[in-house]
Amino acid sequence: MKNTSYKIVLIGSGNVATQLGFALKKSKQNIVQVYSRNIKNAFSLAKLLKSDATNNVSKIISDADIYIIAIKDDEIASIAKKIKIENKIIVHTSGSVAIGVLKNMSKNYGVFYPLQTIAKNKKTNFSKIPICIEANNKSTFEILKQLASKISKHIYNIDSEQRKQIHLAAVFACNFTNQMYAIAEQILKQKKIPFTILYPLISETASKIKHNSPVLTQTGPAKRGDKKVMQEHLKLLSNKKDWAKLYSLISKQIAANKAQ
Amino acid sequence: MKNTSYKIVLIGSGNVATQLGFALKKSKQNIVQVYSRNIKNAFSLAKLLKSDATNNVSKIISDADIYIIAIKDDEIASIAKKIKIENKIIVHTSGSVAIGVLKNMSKNYGVFYPLQTIAKNKKTNFSKIPICIEANNKSTFEILKQLASKISKHIYNIDSEQRKQIHLAAVFACNFTNQMYAIAEQILKQKKIPFTILYPLISETASKIKHNSPVLTQTGPAKRGDKKVMQEHLKLLSNKKDWAKLYSLISKQIAANKAQ
Repeated sequence: MKNTSYKIVLIGSGNVATQLGFALKKSKQNIVQVYSRNIKNAFSLAKLLKSDATNNVSKIISDADIYIIAIKDDEIASIAKKIKIENKIIVHTSGSVAIGVLKNMSKNYGVFYPLQTIAKNKKTNFSKIPICIEANNKSTFEILKQLASKISKHIYNIDSEQRKQIHLAAVFACNFTNQMYAIAEQILKQKKIPFTILYPLISETASKIKHNSPVLTQTGPAKRGDKKVMQEHLKLLSNKKDWAKLYSLISKQIAANKAQ
Repeated sequence: MKNTSYKIVLIGSGNVATQLGFALKKSKQNIVQVYSRNIKNAFSLAKLLKSDATNNVSKIISDADIYIIAIKDDEIASIAKKIKIENKIIVHTSGSVAIGVLKNMSKNYGVFYPLQTIAKNKKTNFSKIPICIEANNKSTFEILKQLASKISKHIYNIDSEQRKQIHLAAVFACNFTNQMYAIAEQILKQKKIPFTILYPLISETASKIKHNSPVLTQTGPAKRGDKKVMQEHLKLLSNKKDWAKLYSLISKQIAANKAQ
């Protein structure tokens, strides 16, 4: 069982398709075909994975074991209508799309959601990444679990409702956090201070959550109720109304401990 | 010069005073006295640093080399009025208070601001922490630089205006980021999902800024303009109006790339 190699079709050629493709290939899975509506993208990923390529849904091969849809969330429903897989396993990799979107594609379907921010051009090490799995039946679940275990040690049984909640939490912990970094960088730029000066602070902030719940370790002027400092900060932001609005809103929530 | 040991008085017994005291003592500096208005706190830190303790400003010794004020930002001005140091060096450790607050205390004054989130009960490794230094004259600056070099390799010459800007950026990169983590944790809790599932995502988000500017690597529904997912997220937040407001505001800024 441990050495099973699955025949896999990748539907998509973006960030997740690319990095997941690399990880699966490295773990000796057999990526047989890459589909992308953009044939150039299909070919360039297929070349790296030594597989075939197509931009024609009717040419997607029918005898693979697992079909992985890794495309934009809002395009999954539309491609699902165009492809019939019969008894093979079909999954998507989205955090926010319910499992049911795939129900007319095959008797066996599921979700294979790697909980990480993934970029095409930055190698993803899947071994520590949580893989959230859901399936419409037990045998499919077991196969997806086995596939996941080839690339990660962290496999979670997560239903569609939980997955949506995880995805929402991830938006705060990743996208919104990244926006805080982006604003911080721009604030420093105004005085020609290098962003590197914040690296140790950013690392420590991200690391200390592993020891204590973030709500318990909050620091800074809002937490201390230091109104004078907050007023000065708002003055510094007077030419950036959107950031000032954000500053007031988040400070208010920190002060009220609204995360609790 | 390298082996100079300074006689230091610590004014304060909180997070920064404690961890800075430990680091200075470890680098063979001579902490001679700890002042805190709370005598218990003064004694307990003094015991750890093997120094004297007092809660009486008039008993602060007069023959130390460097006096470090590490107390709440809004209490610095008031303590500054009560202490006269004459020719010795006096500094504060605050990100947001201008150097001038110390000008009547001594001929030699400055700022010694470690740019990090520091907790009393979690050991701070200062070696990678930026120390932002400012002084009212060159000789004081050189001595502060030497003191800083005993605990860190990252010393910056930062004036009060730049320091305020850095502190504001730090509020976004640390306190506000931590608030995003706190909200994410609470969102998961609603469905009994462990916060640990987000650790790899949080680490990767904090780490990838070292390779690319955060504004260039943003991902997620707001960046993609995926309105359907954003509407579903807002629905999930319908019982948390403050978080929904935050969600809309930050998403709008990401979509508009307002950090640029």
